[in-house]
Amino acid sequence: MQLTALPVNDCVYIINSRLTKCDTEKPADNIEYNLLYEEWASYSVFYKYQPIGLIRKYFGEKVGLYFAWLGVYTQMLIPAAIVGVIVFLYGCATVDDNIPSMEICDPRNNITMCPLCDRACSYWKLVTACGTARASHLFDNPATVFFSIFMALWAVLFMEHWKRRQMRLNYVWDLTGFGEEEEDHNRAEYEFRVMQKTMRQEHSTPKVKLITVTFAIVFGVILYRISIRAALHMSTYPAARSNIRATVKTTAAIINLIIIIVLDEIYAAIARWLTTLEVPKTDKSFEERLIFKTFILKFVNAFTPIVYLAFFRGRLVGRPGNYLYVVGSYRMEECAHAGCLMELCIQLCITMLGKQLIQNNLFEIGIPKLKKLLRRRKSDLDSKQEEELNKTLQRHEKDHILGPFVGLSPEYMEMIIQFGMVTLFVASFPLAPLFALLNNIIEIRLDAKKFVMELRRPIAAKAKDIGRYSSLFPQAFVISFTSDFIPRLVYQYMYSPDGTMHGFVNHTLSYFNVTDFQKGTDPLQPMHLGYKVDMCRYKDYREPPWSSTPYELSKEFWAVLAARLAFVIVFQNVVMLMSDFVDWLIPDIPKDISLQMHKEKILMVELFMKEEQGKSGLLIFTILLYKYTIYNIKCCRDNLFL
Amino acid sequence: MQLTALPVNDCVYIINSRLTKCDTEKPADNIEYNLLYEEWASYSVFYKYQPIGLIRKYFGEKVGLYFAWLGVYTQMLIPAAIVGVIVFLYGCATVDDNIPSMEICDPRNNITMCPLCDRACSYWKLVTACGTARASHLFDNPATVFFSIFMALWAVLFMEHWKRRQMRLNYVWDLTGFGEEEEDHNRAEYEFRVMQKTMRQEHSTPKVKLITVTFAIVFGVILYRISIRAALHMSTYPAARSNIRATVKTTAAIINLIIIIVLDEIYAAIARWLTTLEVPKTDKSFEERLIFKTFILKFVNAFTPIVYLAFFRGRLVGRPGNYLYVVGSYRMEECAHAGCLMELCIQLCITMLGKQLIQNNLFEIGIPKLKKLLRRRKSDLDSKQEEELNKTLQRHEKDHILGPFVGLSPEYMEMIIQFGMVTLFVASFPLAPLFALLNNIIEIRLDAKKFVMELRRPIAAKAKDIGRYSSLFPQAFVISFTSDFIPRLVYQYMYSPDGTMHGFVNHTLSYFNVTDFQKGTDPLQPMHLGYKVDMCRYKDYREPPWSSTPYELSKEFWAVLAARLAFVIVFQNVVMLMSDFVDWLIPDIPKDISLQMHKEKILMVELFMKEEQGKSGLLIFTILLYKYTIYNIKCCRDNLFL
Repeated sequence: MQLTALPVNDCVYIINSRLTKCDTEKPADNIEYNLLYEEWASYSVFYKYQPIGLIRKYFGEKVGLYFAWLGVYTQMLIPAAIVGVIVFLYGCATVDDNIPSMEICDPRNNITMCPLCDRACSYWKLVTACGTARASHLFDNPATVFFSIFMALWAVLFMEHWKRRQMRLNYVWDLTGFGEEEEDHNRAEYEFRVMQKTMRQEHSTPKVKLITVTFAIVFGVILYRISIRAALHMSTYPAARSNIRATVKTTAAIINLIIIIVLDEIYAAIARWLTTLEVPKTDKSFEERLIFKTFILKFVNAFTPIVYLAFFRGRLVGRPGNYLYVVGSYRMEECAHAGCLMELCIQLCITMLGKQLIQNNLFEIGIPKLKKLLRRRKSDLDSKQEEELNKTLQRHEKDHILGPFVGLSPEYMEMIIQFGMVTLFVASFPLAPLFALLNNIIEIRLDAKKFVMELRRPIAAKAKDIGRYSSLFPQAFVISFTSDFIPRLVYQYMYSPDGTMHGFVNHTLSYFNVTDFQKGTDPLQPMHLGYKVDMCRYKDYREPPWSSTPYELSKEFWAVLAARLAFVIVFQNVVMLMSDFVDWLIPDIPKDISLQMHKEKILMVELFMKEEQGKSGLLIFTILLYKYTIYNIKCCRDNLFL
Repeated sequence: MQLTALPVNDCVYIINSRLTKCDTEKPADNIEYNLLYEEWASYSVFYKYQPIGLIRKYFGEKVGLYFAWLGVYTQMLIPAAIVGVIVFLYGCATVDDNIPSMEICDPRNNITMCPLCDRACSYWKLVTACGTARASHLFDNPATVFFSIFMALWAVLFMEHWKRRQMRLNYVWDLTGFGEEEEDHNRAEYEFRVMQKTMRQEHSTPKVKLITVTFAIVFGVILYRISIRAALHMSTYPAARSNIRATVKTTAAIINLIIIIVLDEIYAAIARWLTTLEVPKTDKSFEERLIFKTFILKFVNAFTPIVYLAFFRGRLVGRPGNYLYVVGSYRMEECAHAGCLMELCIQLCITMLGKQLIQNNLFEIGIPKLKKLLRRRKSDLDSKQEEELNKTLQRHEKDHILGPFVGLSPEYMEMIIQFGMVTLFVASFPLAPLFALLNNIIEIRLDAKKFVMELRRPIAAKAKDIGRYSSLFPQAFVISFTSDFIPRLVYQYMYSPDGTMHGFVNHTLSYFNVTDFQKGTDPLQPMHLGYKVDMCRYKDYREPPWSSTPYELSKEFWAVLAARLAFVIVFQNVVMLMSDFVDWLIPDIPKDISLQMHKEKILMVELFMKEEQGKSGLLIFTILLYKYTIYNIKCCRDNLFL
């Protein structure tokens, strides 16, 4: 057997890395560390590919896969960001040609709108919503629909691209088939608890109780937030004039953001507490359950305000004279004239920017630095002594001063939530991919720094799969229900007298006779605009007061609703088909890898054939050498930067 | 090496069956043949599991997988058939409590309907549609919606069940990873053609031409069939009284069936011709392309009339006084009063029964028998001689007298088309699973007989995958657009004065003033019913003649349309989520198999570890023996009946 003539570590590594881990005691370690520091954990190399091979060698497969994923995702965001910016620029360029916003801004269209709240608010002129209408065109134009479809296909392409990259990494790193290999040792807490349990004989009830608690917390917080919104809204009542509405919305979005960030931390603690209560059997199952719970809670937390704005806001408001009241006397919020899309957009923008700024800077840089400082103080070493030590210490010894590795789950979760925002709600905010791209360029190096400098090296663990999260339903819903795309189309092709958008604004506004106000809800200052108002307008498709069925939903309402629903069906099924087609078109395993695997299999068969003649040793050697030659020696350097 | 002490064939087979095929020369062959004949290819054992292990051993993996699939499918059809029959019986039991059909059958509701065709037809009384209305309740009741959801989940369960069975078979038969192993030798025709091509330098044009030809044929035939329908319909004009309409529909369905069967054969020839024109490189690619083409053509052929009835029939008819005419003067067909569901049902029933009866008996039994007879004549042997020969001949020698194996594709295609009818259109015909079950019980034994007696044994080939065909869209569409389920719901909850179905029939009928008939389209015999008709009714939601916008689509139309579309969205997404959940709930690999694979991998790792000490031979032997013991000796008999 000639195997010992080869570098044993690498050779055996190929079969199963768990047999011979890349130990810290290797002499090459410090060189690698410096290489990682220079070529990876530095903002100055942001434009370069990451040295994935090296990262995996140093931090293990789990971390390697995470950074590979982040790299692929960031790379794929580049075209999405470019197209997004073009779509946004198209919106900017066409804002002056947009007939509906021109009509709103035209002072000759002297439209008097119904008050936006009971008593305190008065009638207002539609022309004051001019700014909002113009701004909302930036995010609500035909190009957005195209961009939605583009992003849905982009998501599929990204998945495919990642699947292929993962296949390649799995092959090169020899992860194939070793996914479920990790041996699980029972946690001490579990064994202790089992002992207790067998004595007390209570088995399935805690699980049910825990699920109930989880759901109770989630729904409790949703309710709490809705009431917070109500309180916020009530305090801004006297100021709710349409011209300062954008400011109010921005404030609300910032408050929302702060709530999200604070709740995130609370939720993380709750998830940990709940998982501890469950007493999972093994460390792996503990981690899995914790990740699952944290993810669900964080996801709900991040998306609640967005989903509320996109799907529920302004849907069930009632109509003048018969508004819908909840929680006693709180009137459901209406959207600004140009739809809720603008507010959704502000919310997304602030959430994406804010989460990134605050979470990245404060939590990801500040807090670990602070912790390190505190730990250093405790250890009672003065800085000089430490520096001297630094020079003599091996990397693995230095590691012990650093913070412990808390698992990749926070990084992953953050990215999956970002990915969700980019793909699910891109219809309302074409700049989302750009924001995500900018964040990720920083994020990669930030995480790299964190791994290289701030945190102790994690125990190299193998992870094979990164979930697939995607859905077309929210996108279709945002386009058809939150934006004015469908009503515009319906107007143009069904109702417009001349086939243009002229008259659209008038068409979307229903009439209300001010004598029909419920007692005690009519405005306190009816003469606010300087003239007596007999008839005010509101945005809805309802019969006028003079029809035989006043204020009932009109035929136009049902026609628009049918068109909206038809759009959802068409969008969902067409994009699903296109995605399946793309998925089918691109082979899951890259051609060179599948060829390689084929060749190996043939060699393997030969090996077994020659087994009887006792030549196996040489053949196994041949196979290993073959693989080693192709991937680990010949393209050693390339491989590290794969 | 002790390997020779074991039956070599089986042992090496485990690594790669292509190295040592299960040859016909084995002495056990005749015993196996008799076992197959008794335990499988006989109608008397229809209730028993098939000896899949034996089938695979004798006919190869491809045939083994086909019969395993057929077995799983047939087994899974049993619960579906039972629930389907219950749903049908529910329809039968509630037919007398159905208010809409009671209203139609009530002679006091003296409703005069508009003529169903121009000139020749006259006004008719709704009460004459009583029979159809009652019959259509059998297939159009709330239980059908439940059954649709049930069948969608059934399809997912079936897929999961099959995936697990396939995993088990792949493992036991050692197919894992050997899917793409077959070496492809270039076809002689290809090499010849390449030679020609390089001389003539024409490369990519033929492909485009061929795709064009394929599409032209498919669409040509669809057009041809539509015109055939038109011709058929025109010839029945004078007879188109509503009471004999069912007969006409049944005749049309039978004619359709005959067209389907004849076209099936023509299409098969076209597909073969087209594939020959393409000159595929290898036998495998030839087979693949042929199967793909045949499948597309047969699928289109079988589903065109059903899709037409389900989705297009009666959609674009226009209205009295303004009918839609196509191909000159052919008026688009209307549906009977109770919707097109009844006709769809008749068509499905006749297609499923007819295809099974004719194709099974005539094509699958009759024609091979005939061919055998002819071949026997040619060989110039008289029957006595042959009988003597039979006794002395080995099975593989006998095989040469039998017909050649033409590939599994026809069997698969037939089954996939049946599966499509069962899952896609089950909403309109709850007895479909029962019909499929009855057919398959016969089909299994029939195919078995064909393989054992009629056809030469195929060259054992490996096939790993059977495609996944399923979609929820047609089901949702049939329920919401073809059945009256949604209009009934909308009426009950939006328009009904007392919350019951009373008045539904009247609500679905619009008014037409007979003076508004276009010139030359009013009936020749206006006094056919014995009184002068001023106002006739037709099934649509349109404004009455006395409204300000006569004959325009009414608000009810848009409301019902929106409800229908909403149902499609809800159905599709809810069932998709449920399916994903079921898919996620059931692990793809059966627990015992994954444990087994895990153990083998550990042994494998040990093998490589001990490699250096030269103990590999023994270890490989251990692994093989291990597997062999577990699956091929210990449960040898079980395994054959797996």
